[in-house]
Formats: sequence, structure tokens, C-alpha cells
Amino acid sequence: MKKNNKISELISRVESGELDLSTAFAELNLYSSDANFANLDHTRKERCGFPEFVFGEGKTAEQLQAISQEIASKNDPVLITRISANSADFLLKIYPDAEYDKLSNTFLILPENFKIKKGNALIITAGTTDLPTALEAKYTLTACGCRVELAADSGVAGLHRVISNVPLLQKADVIIVVAGMEGALPSVVGGLVSCPVIALPTSVGYGTSLGGLTAMFSMLNSCASGVTVMNIDNGFGAGCAAARVINSQYKDIRV
Amino acid sequence: MKKNNKISELISRVESGELDLSTAFAELNLYSSDANFANLDHTRKERCGFPEFVFGEGKTAEQLQAISQEIASKNDPVLITRISANSADFLLKIYPDAEYDKLSNTFLILPENFKIKKGNALIITAGTTDLPTALEAKYTLTACGCRVELAADSGVAGLHRVISNVPLLQKADVIIVVAGMEGALPSVVGGLVSCPVIALPTSVGYGTSLGGLTAMFSMLNSCASGVTVMNIDNGFGAGCAAARVINSQYKDIRV
Amino acid sequence: MKKNNKISELISRVESGELDLSTAFAELNLYSSDANFANLDHTRKERCGFPEFVFGEGKTAEQLQAISQEIASKNDPVLITRISANSADFLLKIYPDAEYDKLSNTFLILPENFKIKKGNALIITAGTTDLPTALEAKYTLTACGCRVELAADSGVAGLHRVISNVPLLQKADVIIVVAGMEGALPSVVGGLVSCPVIALPTSVGYGTSLGGLTAMFSMLNSCASGVTVMNIDNGFGAGCAAARVINSQYKDIRV
Amino acid sequence: MKKNNKISELISRVESGELDLSTAFAELNLYSSDANFANLDHTRKERCGFPEFVFGEGKTAEQLQAISQEIASKNDPVLITRISANSADFLLKIYPDAEYDKLSNTFLILPENFKIKKGNALIITAGTTDLPTALEAKYTLTACGCRVELAADSGVAGLHRVISNVPLLQKADVIIVVAGMEGALPSVVGGLVSCPVIALPTSVGYGTSLGGLTAMFSMLNSCASGVTVMNIDNGFGAGCAAARVINSQYKDIRV
Amino acid sequence: MKKNNKISELISRVESGELDLSTAFAELNLYSSDANFANLDHTRKERCGFPEFVFGEGKTAEQLQAISQEIASKNDPVLITRISANSADFLLKIYPDAEYDKLSNTFLILPENFKIKKGNALIITAGTTDLPTALEAKYTLTACGCRVELAADSGVAGLHRVISNVPLLQKADVIIVVAGMEGALPSVVGGLVSCPVIALPTSVGYGTSLGGLTAMFSMLNSCASGVTVMNIDNGFGAGCAAARVINSQYKDIRV
Amino acid sequence: MKKNNKISELISRVESGELDLSTAFAELNLYSSDANFANLDHTRKERCGFPEFVFGEGKTAEQLQAISQEIASKNDPVLITRISANSADFLLKIYPDAEYDKLSNTFLILPENFKIKKGNALIITAGTTDLPTALEAKYTLTACGCRVELAADSGVAGLHRVISNVPLLQKADVIIVVAGMEGALPSVVGGLVSCPVIALPTSVGYGTSLGGLTAMFSMLNSCASGVTVMNIDNGFGAGCAAARVINSQYKDIRV
Amino acid sequence: MKKNNKISELISRVESGELDLSTAFAELNLYSSDANFANLDHTRKERCGFPEFVFGEGKTAEQLQAISQEIASKNDPVLITRISANSADFLLKIYPDAEYDKLSNTFLILPENFKIKKGNALIITAGTTDLPTALEAKYTLTACGCRVELAADSGVAGLHRVISNVPLLQKADVIIVVAGMEGALPSVVGGLVSCPVIALPTSVGYGTSLGGLTAMFSMLNSCASGVTVMNIDNGFGAGCAAARVINSQYKDIRV
Amino acid sequence: MKKNNKISELISRVESGELDLSTAFAELNLYSSDANFANLDHTRKERCGFPEFVFGEGKTAEQLQAISQEIASKNDPVLITRISANSADFLLKIYPDAEYDKLSNTFLILPENFKIKKGNALIITAGTTDLPTALEAKYTLTACGCRVELAADSGVAGLHRVISNVPLLQKADVIIVVAGMEGALPSVVGGLVSCPVIALPTSVGYGTSLGGLTAMFSMLNSCASGVTVMNIDNGFGAGCAAARVINSQYKDIRV
Repeated sequence: MKKNNKISELISRVESGELDLSTAFAELNLYSSDANFANLDHTRKERCGFPEFVFGEGKTAEQLQAISQEIASKNDPVLITRISANSADFLLKIYPDAEYDKLSNTFLILPENFKIKKGNALIITAGTTDLPTALEAKYTLTACGCRVELAADSGVAGLHRVISNVPLLQKADVIIVVAGMEGALPSVVGGLVSCPVIALPTSVGYGTSLGGLTAMFSMLNSCASGVTVMNIDNGFGAGCAAARVINSQYKDIRV
Repeated sequence: MKKNNKISELISRVESGELDLSTAFAELNLYSSDANFANLDHTRKERCGFPEFVFGEGKTAEQLQAISQEIASKNDPVLITRISANSADFLLKIYPDAEYDKLSNTFLILPENFKIKKGNALIITAGTTDLPTALEAKYTLTACGCRVELAADSGVAGLHRVISNVPLLQKADVIIVVAGMEGALPSVVGGLVSCPVIALPTSVGYGTSLGGLTAMFSMLNSCASGVTVMNIDNGFGAGCAAARVINSQYKDIRV
Repeated sequence: MKKNNKISELISRVESGELDLSTAFAELNLYSSDANFANLDHTRKERCGFPEFVFGEGKTAEQLQAISQEIASKNDPVLITRISANSADFLLKIYPDAEYDKLSNTFLILPENFKIKKGNALIITAGTTDLPTALEAKYTLTACGCRVELAADSGVAGLHRVISNVPLLQKADVIIVVAGMEGALPSVVGGLVSCPVIALPTSVGYGTSLGGLTAMFSMLNSCASGVTVMNIDNGFGAGCAAARVINSQYKDIRV
Repeated sequence: MKKNNKISELISRVESGELDLSTAFAELNLYSSDANFANLDHTRKERCGFPEFVFGEGKTAEQLQAISQEIASKNDPVLITRISANSADFLLKIYPDAEYDKLSNTFLILPENFKIKKGNALIITAGTTDLPTALEAKYTLTACGCRVELAADSGVAGLHRVISNVPLLQKADVIIVVAGMEGALPSVVGGLVSCPVIALPTSVGYGTSLGGLTAMFSMLNSCASGVTVMNIDNGFGAGCAAARVINSQYKDIRV
Repeated sequence: MKKNNKISELISRVESGELDLSTAFAELNLYSSDANFANLDHTRKERCGFPEFVFGEGKTAEQLQAISQEIASKNDPVLITRISANSADFLLKIYPDAEYDKLSNTFLILPENFKIKKGNALIITAGTTDLPTALEAKYTLTACGCRVELAADSGVAGLHRVISNVPLLQKADVIIVVAGMEGALPSVVGGLVSCPVIALPTSVGYGTSLGGLTAMFSMLNSCASGVTVMNIDNGFGAGCAAARVINSQYKDIRV
Repeated sequence: MKKNNKISELISRVESGELDLSTAFAELNLYSSDANFANLDHTRKERCGFPEFVFGEGKTAEQLQAISQEIASKNDPVLITRISANSADFLLKIYPDAEYDKLSNTFLILPENFKIKKGNALIITAGTTDLPTALEAKYTLTACGCRVELAADSGVAGLHRVISNVPLLQKADVIIVVAGMEGALPSVVGGLVSCPVIALPTSVGYGTSLGGLTAMFSMLNSCASGVTVMNIDNGFGAGCAAARVINSQYKDIRV
Repeated sequence: MKKNNKISELISRVESGELDLSTAFAELNLYSSDANFANLDHTRKERCGFPEFVFGEGKTAEQLQAISQEIASKNDPVLITRISANSADFLLKIYPDAEYDKLSNTFLILPENFKIKKGNALIITAGTTDLPTALEAKYTLTACGCRVELAADSGVAGLHRVISNVPLLQKADVIIVVAGMEGALPSVVGGLVSCPVIALPTSVGYGTSLGGLTAMFSMLNSCASGVTVMNIDNGFGAGCAAARVINSQYKDIRV
Repeated sequence: MKKNNKISELISRVESGELDLSTAFAELNLYSSDANFANLDHTRKERCGFPEFVFGEGKTAEQLQAISQEIASKNDPVLITRISANSADFLLKIYPDAEYDKLSNTFLILPENFKIKKGNALIITAGTTDLPTALEAKYTLTACGCRVELAADSGVAGLHRVISNVPLLQKADVIIVVAGMEGALPSVVGGLVSCPVIALPTSVGYGTSLGGLTAMFSMLNSCASGVTVMNIDNGFGAGCAAARVINSQYKDIRV
């Protein structure tokens, strides 16, 4: 039910004469409050189903603190990806209950009442070196209020590992398949399940892995029908895509 | 709802001793009957949610007839993509009620009782030249039993066209965004809706469109979070991906 | 009017017999005085409309000082791009009134009488990370004597931000549109205005952003007609290109 | 002079209460009349300074006739690029006064009262094989009401030809430099003039010309400051870009 | 077993004084008799284990006949790859017992006494469209005197097909794995067997299959250790590589 | 000789009713004991002919010690590639008899009874800078129980060096040819011998060596028939591939 | 002795006052007579050592006749490369003594008194399929008045062929080495001789030969010092480059 | 004049029976004395016209000293390219008269009697940042005994600088044209002179300069006929190529 969408509301109010157009635009601007060094997009949750998250790279600890404070003040989860160790240490002193994952450089502050969870997302990786990207996806899904499970190190060269994961694969609502090198795992998984499959290439490998391009092109050419693909190492994007799927499956449950 | 899966069933029967392993494999093979020039994968519907479809390129009219007959005999929809005009004319004489779309080179024979439809998929294109790819996606979704609507020619250079489509965008269950050239439309659409968005690049353009690579890379780098991407001109794959989403949203309805 | 062009003048004098050819060449050389480590092109202002600017990368603080002194002695603005922090600190002691922008690594010394300004250039960016490139363009336009305004963080995934900038866009004489990732903004802007639009791709992004190539190819394939493109991260070049436009619009005003 | 812009007008009328928002959108739609196979963008002239032109590739002679009739009925010039010989012959019978250029596959129907011309655009080419692309640019500029001159075959390997064109170069308002192979000409031209220079790469060459990529990359790296670049073989786009420059220089003259 | 190598023999005879060096070179030349349009390398069999084969592309039927006659006269098998239908028909009249495979465009004339066979090569393909390349490899192995079996259409998206081929895979002496699209099959096979595995990418696929580059790069990055790779569509090369393996395993058997 | 394969054994026991399927899978899992940070694949030796080796990059000294201990406890050789100097020093204190090669960053612990050797592998390099990659291949072959010889610096620009290596080349069972830059050596070697030839490209070179892509593409296009290719700098993979060849030639000898 | 250079002469005459500058430019223009569809550069012979040659592709038989007539009227050799069979037949009727080479599509009309020859150029090819490119180089050298010898089919996989050509290689003044596929021959040749070596890559090959890029990159990375490289399939350019060498070696002999 | 070639001599002695073949090979080996970490090719001077030079990258100061000593002991010039500052300082203490160029990282020890010089090589650069590569070429030519002149900073955007260098260009025996960015200079120079022109691309530039690929591709497509090209930044190779030209022009003068 996308009824309480801010934009639709504004359009209605303009149509009913309650609002003139320039005030409407201004009001839209109001929803984008300025933290001086970043324009937060506060209508994103209404439009897209998840609030704006924070790309930590290149931001100072102080800037991250200010942004975190503003988001947290609205009782939204604060997700910072690609955070530096220094910034994380700085924030941990202020938010001692926050979760900081060193492998994926992710920082997550959940609001106190953040309890309702929905869906069963599964993240499966080909190798252990794919874990940082997989974990970024995992924390993103958590910040979106989705339940998520992680099954690592199931590459196709040891086929028995994939096969022993079939029961896990078949009960998932959406699957993120993380792989570098030759990126073969999504084809095997896509042929075994009916739910949406999101292939997430990583830059793991050397020489002709071409920084992940080989895995990504491989996934785009998957012989399993209906597998979609994300940008290289983009765990955050894959998490959002999986959250879009789960949000669309469980429309009645609001986090 | 994935209970009546043939593979799970076989595993149970092997475990209960009802079946030995080699017979189980044989039985799996039985499900892949051989039409002499193609191995049809008849358990795909159980595993993936849609039956095996037919890639028409490089197959003779007679081969396509034989395959069609076998699939139709199981009361499954027959979808042939990339069919030649000659083969289509040949098949139309045998299946006069079939639908043949010349723009996308798609051929569709629906079973008589093919009535239940589910979901609301939306396909939106940037230009008119993206139509062939969009139509391939549309017929694929139809063959999967999904309702689908098509909104063409809404490129971002005429922003008013996109904006006037907002109501249509917001009521969709899943959106396929088709674009060539600079591939900008998925970023705009992805920022306006909360449902899953599948970006489908086309080879429309010349020079540095690089046969669709530019549109595809553009979509992989979308600033709208959680947009997933298909291979270039792969309308069939995008249709299957959208069907995976709708199937997961409407698990109780079986086509 | 380009009448007082040094080359035309020399050709006339040679034709009139006032000058022989080898002396003419020598005289041309005279205009390129040698500061020992760089050949300054002092006729560039006559030929191209703006004086020679300084690429700071790889030059020592002492070299930059010598060059600055020579340019400043002719009452021309001194623009140094890609300057190191050390060199900037060194020069700031000598030129305390100079402007040093740390984000874009640009250093600008304006002559005392540098007052006349012309035109209205607008620089609009998709994200905040595009700012360093945008600022390099801004300082270049300033050094060329052009008025310039900067509107940051107007990416297409938050369409309301672009729309609220329409009045600003429509009053500009020339627009530089700065974007990384999928580079979609120039297509949207190009479809909204009639003035020259210069698309400036940045290397912002990762994975398939390919160091800015994706944004650049996207811009070269813009569905908005008549958008021109610069090299990746080349804020200096975009500033010069915009200055060429403004100089051609305001021929009677000389800075 | 952008006052009589349809969009601004609509915004004003909505703000004044004269119009409600959905009617406004509908009215915008009215301006995009549907010729059944193409959505013409009739507000483009107000927004961008030139009317919508027709990409002839893949359209039938009958479709082109219908579109031509609709555009011509509004007294706008009809420009069809990449037209087939057959379609051109068909249209010539209907529009005997139209101009059909076989080299560039361009077709131009000018309205009777199409008399006012403005500006001095110059198109210079490196070789004779660059002519088709150059002519596409020339006819586009003509359709935009701009005066245009063409100087062909001035490649840098015969430097005397470039030098003898210097007077022509220095009196132009905007220059389109067309070159394939190594794409060196824009660097030489850009160093000789102060007006906007638009580099237009062509796919002329073989082997490592890479279908024009080499010329284009070369132009993007021009050592002459402020040269902007178009997509390969995109004479139409270069013509529009030059028209944007001239329109911005001669705002008071309306074609 | 490499004792009766012609080069070693010549070196010995030169060393023993039996032969001077220029005569030795001349004698080497004698082994390369000239059929006027091709220099056949008649010592290749001694050096490399298989005779020179014929690349049919671009050679006339008459030229192929002459070459065939010369090779056949030495009682060697005549293998012509990439032959045109016309040339094949022409040769079939002269060599009615020859085998002509239309799918792979291969032509094979075996000498009468060609009876001894050795080894068990297995060729496995991911899809049916990989067959032409697989068959080229098959006929090459046959011409080298090796036994060969072909198992088609075992792509990883239908994992049960691969698993049911495990017994076949485990009894092979060398395996050629043929796949296009994402090229995942060699990784699965390589993880199941201990014999040499030769991955053979095909140009099957579209869009980002990049004419086979994606499959090839995927195979070069296989997570299964010790998989080697051939050039795209190079069935002939893969056949020769497999023959090298079998020749080295069965040194005592000479065909 | 592949009889005592664990998988075949399990299949037999399941078929005979001795084992149910889920226990079989569990048993397979038992063979993959978890060292907490890595899943070792203990059936690989049975399946592929060599045990799992360790990729040292990104693992701590303590992790490497734990893995080494587990592998060594089964009396298997411990091969660690791409080890850091620190980790190597740490391990040398624990395993003073281990071999640590600084040039290739390889660490090798051989079990006490590791005595039986088989085959004659030859590694030949074009230049001295190819040595690190060549040595990685050499230690891998040693860990597989294969005899190996190394002939360095035999580039084709000094043809006499290649020629003087002919006797060495002709007595090898399998040859790994290591080259960077133009990668020409495998073509020359492949034309001189009949045994399997594995071309191993290195990233040696600059400019258009493209990080080894040029050498690799060169090798994939070798005019010598039947040369197979590995990924760039993948000495480990080439060693495994050569071991597969030797294992298949000497099936009766078990290390 | 470059004394009778037209440009130097003009400069002297301008300096001496004998000529004014605009007349000088006009006179330069006079030397570029216009055959209506092509601007011939008649001072090229003075500047570059060889006259302007004709690129036949895309020119009609009539145009080629007119150009030929003009060049022949000045007693210069007429070289037409990439000529169509039709045009060649047409011209042969007019110039029955001309030489037309079907393999390389080259047409050569030598003036009656064209007798003096100089130098010893050698063209050596790796395969027979490299012949068309090699022959284009051969006819270009002939048109430049240079003696030239051709040694075909000397690829490195049959090393004895290269070695038997050593005497031929060592007596050449300049060598053009033509090769496709892996492009290894120039490295071998460059290591055997002291004269200038021009590597000429061809597009011979398939798959990863990448249309000749692989051969070209290979040659650019040659381990033989001082080998220079031409564009792919550019036999004409290689011929000119070799002629530059020979002209510089035999300055006193004028053709 | 290539009479005293060691290989020819050996062949003669073998033919005359004076020498047996294996001794001949041994003797060839003797000419490649082993300095333990490098195989010096001491017959290169006889074969190629210049002695073996030393690539300093990755060699220790002690290794360089040993190699230098060995070369110097034969009275040959010692040229070390890409030397580290530390190694250079170390060697300068031993060879105080050596020349060490910091810009190009080149180290040159000339033998005492190194006096005869021949030819006039010219090196011309487009920009000052091309100097390191140009200087590497300059020192290589010096080590080959060739006279060489350097004209820097003559880019085509300041055409007057190129023109004022025409007299210098016309008197050269061979010209190396060094340029990065768009690489246009060789086309202009190639159109002005008749001597051999060697285009040397540098990695100067950013964004789409693609590390020098753009300049190199540009040069390979030069519209000036007969320009040859070197690898990116390969000043050493260009120097050797120019030395090959001069050696072939001045055969009678031996350094």
C-alpha cells in the first residue's frame, strides 16, 4: 500500500487547491534538510521503501557523527558503509551499542524499537574472500528490517557443498549469490530455485579476473534464466535490491 | 509452497528406501525427454517456476514444430523467441490461434485453459527503438502467466513524459526499465518507486554506445539504490526475472 | 572582434614588406619567453581568448613561484591547477591575497584591477563527490573573468532536486553538468534548456564506473540533442570551454 | 528571451489557479501528439531552441511522410537524418522542393517563409571521407536557421592547407572540426581561435582507428584548452551543439 | 620414444661429418615440398606427433584437392577444417569415402590402413549450440588416431545432467569441456576429475558474451585448479592439445 | 585406477542400502573439516589427484599455522603460495625444515616419507623476470610429487639459446613455457616438441603489455597447434595442470 | 640533399622579397590542383620523398581514371590501393600495361622512364594468409622506386624455415616483417639483424586475435630492441616507412 | 658490411669442417657468459649493431656493478635504464665519470676511446612532461655512438613552435617524435620531412589518455604516410630503432 507517499500527497493537495505549486516545491525542499556538508533525502523512505543510507568513504568522523545524529533523531536505522577504522572507533564511543563489522567496513546503529523483521533473505558465497562484499549486503538487509542468513564458501569446484545447501536455497524468499573469479555459482543456484536471484560479482581474483569484470560478464550471460546482476563489489546495492523484493512480498508488514 | 518439487520428492523416496540412487537419476533423466535435436528440461517448472522456453535462432521450422508439439502436449505455454519470419509463417498454419509478434520475433502458443493471471508487471521504455526488446519481455511475462503493461517512449530528455507516468509506476509490482544510448531512465525510475526495478539495456545507439555496453554500465552504476541489471537486449531474461518476483509475491496463485 | 591578433598583425607586416619571414618567426618566438623550465605561450590570450594557465602537478614550489611572478608581471591572472598542499602553502606566504581551494587543489592569484565580469555560467553537479572537479571548473571560469554559480548535489535519483533547479537552469548562458557514476544528469538538463550544455564526467564511482569511462560514454550518447563532452575529471577544460562560449556571447566586453 | 516557454507558462497558470495540475500534465501531453508510431515532442523548440528532428533509420517511407506532414503543418523545418534512398525518392515526389543529400543521407524540407538566418558556423574536415558526417552537421545547422560554411580536406599532414584556412577560422562564431584516423585537427584549430570549438570524430580509418574511438579519445585529450567533443559520426549532434552556441550569441534574432 | 626425430638425425649426421650444414638445411627444405600455393611442413609429425592439417578457409576446391592428394600420397590422414560446402562437394566426388561434417565444416579422409586407435578422450558441451566447435575437436582427435566420445548439452543450470555424466567423466584420459555464455562448466568438471581438462570457449551468446571473451576469461579464472584454456571456437587446437596428452600417455602405440 | 574415489564409494554404499542419502551428504561434509576460518576440501586428492593447497594472501600467520598443522597431520604436503615474508618467518620457526622461496613467495613443508617422484616436467622461461611465476609452478609440481627442471632466460630474440635447449625440450613429459612481453616463446617451443605444452603468461613488461594480457592473447593465438594457456602469473595453476598430465601418464605410481 | 624542396624555396623567395606571403600561399595552393572530388597534394614528393598515392576504397572508376590521368601527366607513378575489381577492369582497358594484383587489390601504373631502382627491401611473412598485406607493401615500395624481395610463410612454429632465411635477412637494407595471430616473427627477426625492422601486424586469426590487435600489441612488446610497428593490415604505410629508410640510405640516387 | 658476423663465421667454419656442430653451439654459448644473475648476450653487437644494454629495474646496486664491470671490461659502453637513485649513487662512487640523468633514470658509462660519432638524430617533444622518455631515447642513441639533438615543447596547439622548428626537422637523418595526450605531433612532422619518423607515445595525460594508449593509437593512425610507432614510454626502444636507421645509413663508420 504505497498510499502515504509524500509526493502523491503533495500532488493531491496542489490539485485540490490547498497548495500552490511553488510552495509544493518548497515543501519538497523542506524534506531535504541540509546538514551543511550533505543533502539528506528524507522522502526516500516514502518513495523507495528504505531510508537514505550513508556512504562513509571520504567523510570525516565528525561529519559522520552529525549525519548519524540527524538520522537517528528520526528513529531511522543508521547504516554507514565503507567506514574507516578511525571513524568507526570514534563513533563507537558515542554509540556503544552500535555494530561495527571490520571485514566489510560497515557500521550499523539500530533504533531501540527496531524489532519487526520480515522475509528470509539468503546470501551464499563462492569463496571466503567474497565475505566482505557479502557482509555489506547482510548489514544493508538488516538495516532494511529483513531477516537474512549467510552461507559461505560454496564454490562450484566442490559441487557437494552446493548440493548440501539445496534445502537452504529452496526455502529462501530471495537469494544473493556472491562470487568472484569465474562467477559460476549464480548459474548453478538459478537452475535450482524459483525465487528472485541477485548475482553479486566481486573483484576477487587476479590477472584476467579484470577486477571483477569477468565474474560480472559471466553472471550477465548466465544460462539460468532470470538471474539479475549488480555492480562489482556492490554489496550495499544487492542488499537494497533484495529488500525491494522482500518489501514487495510482505507489503502489509511495516518495519 | 515449494513442496511438490520433483527433486525433493526423489530425495525423500531415496531416503525412505523406496528408490535406489541410480533409478532416481534415471527417473530424473526420464523427465528430460529427447526430441532428437534438443534435450527439454521438464523439471524446470518445478525447480524455477516457469517451464523451459525455446530459443528459436538457428532451429528449422520442422524442429520448432516438433518441440512445440511436445511442450503443448503437456499443456504448457509454448514461447519461441528470436524466431525467423519463415518459421513463424510455417507454425502459424499449424497453430492459427498462436500470436506472432514481428517486431520482437516472438511466437506464443497459449494452452486453451490458460486463464489465471497474477501480478502487475510494468515495462517502460526510453525510446521507440527499444520496443523489440521490451516486447520480448512482455511475451515472456505473458507466457509465465503474469499481467503486464507497456509504457513506451518516456526518455529523460522529455522529463514531462516520465513525470506523467508516475501514477503508473507507483502501482506496479515490478518494473522493467528498457533503455539504450545513455541508459539514464532506470536511475530516474528507481528513485521514484519502492518495488523491484530491473534495468534492461538495449543495443540502440551508435558510436560510443558500444552495442549497448554504455547503457548497461550506466545502469550498473545507477545512483538509485537497488536497481538490478540484465544482459544487453535480453528481453527474455528480464521477463523471467520479473516473473520470479511476481511468483514470489503471489505464491498461492498457481497458473 | 579578433582584429588585434598578433599572428594576423605579423602576416600583414610581412606582406607589406615591413618584416621578413625569419624575423617574423623570431618575433613569434620572442612572445614565448623561456622561464628555463617552461615555455610560456604569451600569444595564447590573443589567439584563444584566455592566457596560458599552469598545470601544477610535478612542478616544485620554486618553479611555480617563478612562473607566477612572470605571469603576474604582465597583469594576467595566475591560475594553478592540481597544486600540492606544500606548494600552495609556500605560495600563500608570497601571495597572501591569493585564493587556495583545498578541495580542488586550485590556486588563484587575481591582478588588482581584475574587476570586469561577464556572463552567467552555471555549474550543476549530480553528487557532492563531484565537487572537486566542479570547483576546478569554477576557478577556471573566474580566472577567465566570467561570473559563475554552483548548484551541487542534484542527482536524477531525487528528481525533485533537479526540478527545483529549473529556474536557475533556464537563466544561465552556459551550463557545465558534472556527474560520475551513470552520468545521467546532462540528458535531463539538456532536455530542459536551450543554451550550450557541457557535460563533464568524473571518476566518481567504483567497479564498472571504469574510472569515469561509463559516465563519459553515457554523456556522449545523451538522448538530449547537442550536448558536448569533456575528458574525465577535466574541470579546467570545461571551464575554458564555457569561457569560449561566454567570450563569444559578450565579444564587446574585454576583461 | 526564454519567456514564452510553454512549461513556465503552465507553471504560472497552475500557480494562479487558472489550471489544475492534472490538466496541466494533460495539456503537456497534448503537445506530444501521437502519429501512431512516434511521439513527437512539440515543446522541444520552446525548451531547447530547435524543434524535434527525425532519425530516419528504421522508419518506412509512409511513416516518414506522416511525420513530415505533421511537422510541416506547424511551419517547422523537417529534417530527416540517415534516410534510405528509397524513402528519399518517395518523399521527393511529394516534396519536390526538398533537398536530399545522398552523401550524408539527409533530407530537408524548409518552410516557405524560412528566410532569416543568423551566425557564421564553420565546419572544417581533415579528409574528404569525413564529408558525410560534416554534411549531416551542415544540414542540421541549416534546419536551425544558422548560416554555415564548409572547408573540406585540411588534414594536418599538409600543414599549408590548415594555415591557408586561418582567416576563415578566425572569423567564425563557432567551429565544428571533423576528423577520423588520429583526430589531430581539433588541437591545431583549437590553438588558433577563441570561439567555441566542437570536435566531431568520424569512424574513418581501419585497424586501430577502432571505429572512431581513437579519433574521439584523441580529441578528448586535446592539448588545446576548451575543446568539447561529440559522439562518433554524430554530425546531427554537433550541428545541434553549434546551433545552441549561435542561438545563445544571437538571442534577439528568432528564426 | 622420440628417437627417430628427423632433426636429431640430421644433427647427428652433421656432427659425424656425414653431412655438411648447408646440405642439412637443404634436406630440411626438401621435407617442405611446395604445392605452389602452400608450404607443407612434412617434418611436423616427427616433431609434434601429428601431421600438418589443412585450414580450409580461403582456399579453392582445386587447391584443397592438390594438397589432399599430396598428403594422402604419404598415407597420412587428410583433415580439412573450416571447409566451404562447395569445396566439400567437389572433394566428395573424388574421395567418396571421406567424411564431411556439415555442422562443423570439417572434411576427413582417412588412409585405408588407419586402424589403430588409442586413448579415451571425452568432449562434453554445455549446450547444443556448442556442437560445431565440439565436432571440430572430435574430428581432429580422430585424425590423430585417438578414440573420442561426445556428451552434449550438460549445462550447469540443469545440474542433474552434469551429475549423471560423472561416471563418463571419471573414466576419460583427457576431457575437452566446451561452453559459451558464462563458461561455468569447466569449473564444475575440473573439480570432479583428476585427468587433464582442456576448457574450450565458444562464441555462443550475445550482448556481453563479447563473442566468447566472457566464456574464455571465465575459464581462465576457474576455481578448479589446473584447468587449461584454448582460443575461442578453436576446436582444432583443443583436439591437438588433447592428442598431445594422449600421445604422451600411450607413447608405445604409434598410429 | 580411480577406483578408491570417495564419491563413487559413497554412491555404491547408498545404492546397496548401506547408507541413506542424507547420511551420505553428512559424511561428505565430515570430509570437509572446518578450521574455523577456512573449509578444507579433504576429498580433493581423491577427486583431482592433488590435495588442497593454501593461497596465503590475506591470511594471518596464525591462520596459516593452524591450516598447516591440519594438513600436515594427514601426512599431506603443505604448499602455501603468495605468503608474506612475516608469515614465512613465523612458520619457519615452527617448521625449520620447510622450504621458503622469497622470489616466488612460496612455502613448502614436505612430509617425512615424501620420497617417490614421477615424471619429467620442464619449465622454460623467456626472461629472468619471469622467474617468480616459474618458481611458483616449480614448487607446486614438487608438492604434487613430480620431478621438475627449470631452464631460464631463453627468449626468442636470442634464438641460439632456444636452439641449445632443444635436447632438454625433447626429453620432457610436459613443458610449461613462461613468458611476458610479446609471449612468443610457446609458439617456438610448441613447434619443436610433441608433448603437452602449457603456456604461462606473466605480467612482465610495460605500456601495451597490458599487465600480461598481450602475452596471454599472443599465446592463445599461437601458430603452434595444441598449445594450452593459463591465467596471467598463475604459476600455481600451471603446476597443477602439468601435474594432471604427469599423473595421467604415470597412473600406476602413487606418491 | 633536400635542397630543391618547394617550401624552402618559397621561404627563400619570400625572404628575398621576390614573393609576398599571400602569393606564396596561393602558389602553395596552386600545387594542390583540384580534380573536383579530391585535393591532390603535389608538394608531397618534395616534402616526404614519395608522391601522393591513391586510396581506392570508395572512389568510382571514373574518379580513379581522372586522378590517374592527372598524376600520370606529371610522369609520376600511379599507385591505387584497395581498388575494387570493377574499377581495376575499367582502368586496365585504358592502361593495358598497368599491373593489377588481385590478392592485395593494388593497381600500379609506372611511367615509361621509370627505370632507376635503389636499395634492397625484404618483406618476410609468417603465413600465406599474410600475403595480401605483404603485397600491398611490395607494390608501394616498387612505386617508390625501391628494389624489394618477398619471402613468404616463415612462421616461428617451423623454426627451420626462419633459420634457412638468415642469409636473405642479413643482406637486406630494411625488413618488413608481416604476421598475424601471435605476431612472434618480428622478435625472432629483430634478434638476427642490424638493419631497421618494421613489424606489420595483420588481422589474420580469429577469436582472441582481436582483429589484429593481439599481433600488434605483441610486436609493440617485442623483446628484440628497436623494432618499430605499423597499424594493422597497413601494408601501404609499411611500404612508405621502408621507402623513407631506403631514401635516407641512398640520398644521392633519385628515382 | 655485415661480414664479421659471428654466426655467419661459425656456419662457414662448420661447413668447412673446421668445427663440429655441438662445438659450434658451445662456442655460441661461450659468447653468453653468465654473471650468475643475468645471461649477457655478447653476440648481439655483431648481430644487431649495438651491444646488450641493461634494464636497471629490479636489479640491486651490486648486481648492476658486476654487470657494468663485465661490459666495461670489453670496452663497450654501459647503458643502464630505469635505474634507482640509490643504485645510481652507488655506481657514481665507482664510476665518477659516468653520466647519471635523474629525469629519465638513465646511467651511462662511456669507454675512454668512445669518440667516433655518426649521423644526426633529432628528438622532438610535444610537451615538457615528455622529457623523461625523450631523454631515455637520447642516452640510448649516445650509447650507440650516434649524434643526437633534442627540441622540446613543440606541441601542435602552438603551431608557431612547430613551424619555427622546420629547418631543424629537415636536416635530420632520423626523427623521434615524442608525445602524450592526443599524440598529434608525429602527423604534422611526418608531413614535413622525408627521413624515417619514429613516433614515441608517452603516458602523459589523464582520464581518457588511457595511460598512453590514446596517443599510441593516434600515432598508429597517422594521416602522414610511413610513420612507425614504438611502445608507450619506450624511449630505449625508440633510441635503438633510430640507431638501426643511422647504422644502416653510415655503414662504413664503425663506432
